[in-house]
Amino acid sequence: MRTLLLATILLVSTPFFSQSDDEKQIRAIYDLSLTNGKAYDWLNHLSNQIGGRLSGSVQAQQAVDYTKGQLDSLGLDRVWLQPVMVPKWVRGTPEFAYIETKPGLTTNVPICALGGSVATPEGGLKANIIEVQGIEDLEKLGKEKIAGKIVFYNRPMDPTQISTFSAYSGCVDQRYSGAAEAGKYGASGVIVRSMNLRLDNYPHTGSMSYGDTPVSSRIPAAAISTKGAELLSTTLTLNPEIKFYFKQNCKQFNDVQSYNVIGEIKGSTYPNEIMLVGGHLDSWDLGDGSHDDGAGVVQSMDVLRLIKANGYKPKRTLRVVLFMNEENGLRGGNKYAEVAKSKNENHVFALESDAGGFTPRGFSFDCTDENFNQVLGWKKLFEPYLIHMFIKGGSGADIGPLKTDELVLAGLRPDSQRYFDHHHAENDTFEHVNKRELELGAATMASLVYLMDKYGTIQSKKIKG
Amino acid sequence: MRTLLLATILLVSTPFFSQSDDEKQIRAIYDLSLTNGKAYDWLNHLSNQIGGRLSGSVQAQQAVDYTKGQLDSLGLDRVWLQPVMVPKWVRGTPEFAYIETKPGLTTNVPICALGGSVATPEGGLKANIIEVQGIEDLEKLGKEKIAGKIVFYNRPMDPTQISTFSAYSGCVDQRYSGAAEAGKYGASGVIVRSMNLRLDNYPHTGSMSYGDTPVSSRIPAAAISTKGAELLSTTLTLNPEIKFYFKQNCKQFNDVQSYNVIGEIKGSTYPNEIMLVGGHLDSWDLGDGSHDDGAGVVQSMDVLRLIKANGYKPKRTLRVVLFMNEENGLRGGNKYAEVAKSKNENHVFALESDAGGFTPRGFSFDCTDENFNQVLGWKKLFEPYLIHMFIKGGSGADIGPLKTDELVLAGLRPDSQRYFDHHHAENDTFEHVNKRELELGAATMASLVYLMDKYGTIQSKKIKG
Repeated sequence: MRTLLLATILLVSTPFFSQSDDEKQIRAIYDLSLTNGKAYDWLNHLSNQIGGRLSGSVQAQQAVDYTKGQLDSLGLDRVWLQPVMVPKWVRGTPEFAYIETKPGLTTNVPICALGGSVATPEGGLKANIIEVQGIEDLEKLGKEKIAGKIVFYNRPMDPTQISTFSAYSGCVDQRYSGAAEAGKYGASGVIVRSMNLRLDNYPHTGSMSYGDTPVSSRIPAAAISTKGAELLSTTLTLNPEIKFYFKQNCKQFNDVQSYNVIGEIKGSTYPNEIMLVGGHLDSWDLGDGSHDDGAGVVQSMDVLRLIKANGYKPKRTLRVVLFMNEENGLRGGNKYAEVAKSKNENHVFALESDAGGFTPRGFSFDCTDENFNQVLGWKKLFEPYLIHMFIKGGSGADIGPLKTDELVLAGLRPDSQRYFDHHHAENDTFEHVNKRELELGAATMASLVYLMDKYGTIQSKKIKG
Repeated sequence: MRTLLLATILLVSTPFFSQSDDEKQIRAIYDLSLTNGKAYDWLNHLSNQIGGRLSGSVQAQQAVDYTKGQLDSLGLDRVWLQPVMVPKWVRGTPEFAYIETKPGLTTNVPICALGGSVATPEGGLKANIIEVQGIEDLEKLGKEKIAGKIVFYNRPMDPTQISTFSAYSGCVDQRYSGAAEAGKYGASGVIVRSMNLRLDNYPHTGSMSYGDTPVSSRIPAAAISTKGAELLSTTLTLNPEIKFYFKQNCKQFNDVQSYNVIGEIKGSTYPNEIMLVGGHLDSWDLGDGSHDDGAGVVQSMDVLRLIKANGYKPKRTLRVVLFMNEENGLRGGNKYAEVAKSKNENHVFALESDAGGFTPRGFSFDCTDENFNQVLGWKKLFEPYLIHMFIKGGSGADIGPLKTDELVLAGLRPDSQRYFDHHHAENDTFEHVNKRELELGAATMASLVYLMDKYGTIQSKKIKG
């Protein structure tokens, strides 16, 4: 009976009007995004008029100019470019590879150089090839069996992981460190199975690192399509003596000047509390970078536009940051955090969208339990939009350098099933982004930003209280 | 303190071992589906070797033969064909249409005849055209303004509906009854905006009915692509006197013999309690029917295979039913229910997949609160697979005729955002189905079937108890 009474009191004391007001604001955000969103038009331009935007490229600069111009047109309080030096790696002429079963009998396979790789010798590299299931196999084989050969990393992504990002995490060490590690055993080159759950003919690039390997000892590394990997593996099983040939003439140049693109709406009440929403403006060069991360860029831009267009005036400063060079350096994210620190800026919330423009399922939060519990209290407001996933976990690479104990970091979590079909490959293109799915993502982000602004994070409440 | 004690007791008294067993069974189902699913291969054959399977067509018969053969190969206890007479409507040669701004100045637009429509006169139909936003506009306009003209139904699907099926429900009366209603006002033909949220060039067909309109008074009806509808509407605004021309020579033939395809695993303990899982084998003729409903067919088939392959022996009889003629008649669903009734069969659970092969989000249940509450108790078991949606609502058209007060009817609910991009159109094709998404759907269905079998529905418990 007492419990019942308590429940009644709690019900009565719930800020009912406020709740209903939140429902209305969020409904208005979704309605506007789905009927009059700008994200899809912006993405169309980024993808189809500009295209792949690798750091240091002409297209990356065009993307800076275009998005700054679009932010300028939104009537924000301030739009600016934040200078950052970025690496410039260029793929060169298309890569070429084949399996040589015996002299004169060859089968071409689709490959692409990994980002940051060195070139092969001018005439290409031909050598015996040895398949491994991961870096840990190298030690077992030893120098004797590896020296002079091309190492073929063929551990596939685990299809039983429901989150494809978990499957990616379980494999990507082969791509990132495979060349540096194989080089220690005298390998002449590295071929890595593409980070893709599907069997197809697209090789998927992505960043790799030579660690502290001296320049003269670096060996070339390329990704092979999943179908190519299956063919190579089968051929190797039949005849371990086959040779593999590949040729690539990619090159690392000196760092060049580039920019993060930033726009903000000044907070009406707490202008020194900054809420950041962002994605990364650079992309790989093979496709047009629509999912990775054109989608996150245009969604983040539209968050500010949607909030403004709905007549909501944020109490805290709302900033959109389009980061440069997430893919092969994270220079933009690091520079942004460095400048923020030097200016003693107070970031209370940062949200990144960098997991594709697919149907949003929820958010992942990197924050204290206290802040996470506050967010869980808002879950019901998202149910009408089929947003169910509120989990603790990572946020986004670009906002990671801002991390403090009290900052709430978050990442949009779209449905991940198709992400790695397109990720870093030639088929990461505009036609694979669905307008509604993209717009639902923007609205979902804007709704969370609205709630964070209205109620503040635990940190911002403490400052006030 | 007491509360804490109670919580401890509750924890201890929870059937922990049993729960853990369910978790293992469901994990095994998902693992098998994602690593060794058959659904995608079957769909490949249905879509790419057979193609569109309109009732009464050669392809529909090929689909019957193929799926029966595949079920035969699974080692089920019984596989059979259930005869059913189905309508045979044939599209004929490709439709053709244009907007005539003035004599000699024409713009072609993409159209397709609605399923069940009559042909235009042999030379086509040319008339003035009048745009309406729905059937309710006809009365306002009256015979005077409609007689002799083509009525153009142009109410778009509402983009602010998060469920695209809700948006579809709000529009489809134009397609289904538009011709019968406009005919009453003397219209000469009907053009309907395609049921599609996206702007593109694909016209979407679908069933329509003339109701009790005498054959001699039936007017031809076609769907126009959404881009075509936009162009037509704009052109009409500029000049209401334009003419519209269209030509189609579709035809209704006499009913022909066809079949539902059925397979079953006999229940080990309660063989007279039937659990049904199914989809519809027929499709429209423009695409290859991969999402509608090839996906549901192959998922349903794989439910039995997955359960069997995992070594689980159902206590109740598990039956897969591949219904014929959902699209333009529902004859298969009606026949199945009629036979079930005549044999006094006891169906306790029926699950249909007919909403596309997209990432599964959950289920919709048509059942008593008592049964629904039992299902809600299983929700946690689905969380690792990102299945969150357990709602009351409709189930599936084919299983609807089985409805009784105590039967649990359910429909798989995949993500709906892209469904109407493809529904009933030329681009409902295999390449738009993602293998993992399809397999996740099959596993989600099989998991629910497993739980229903293990715990029984409230009805089956009452029979036993």
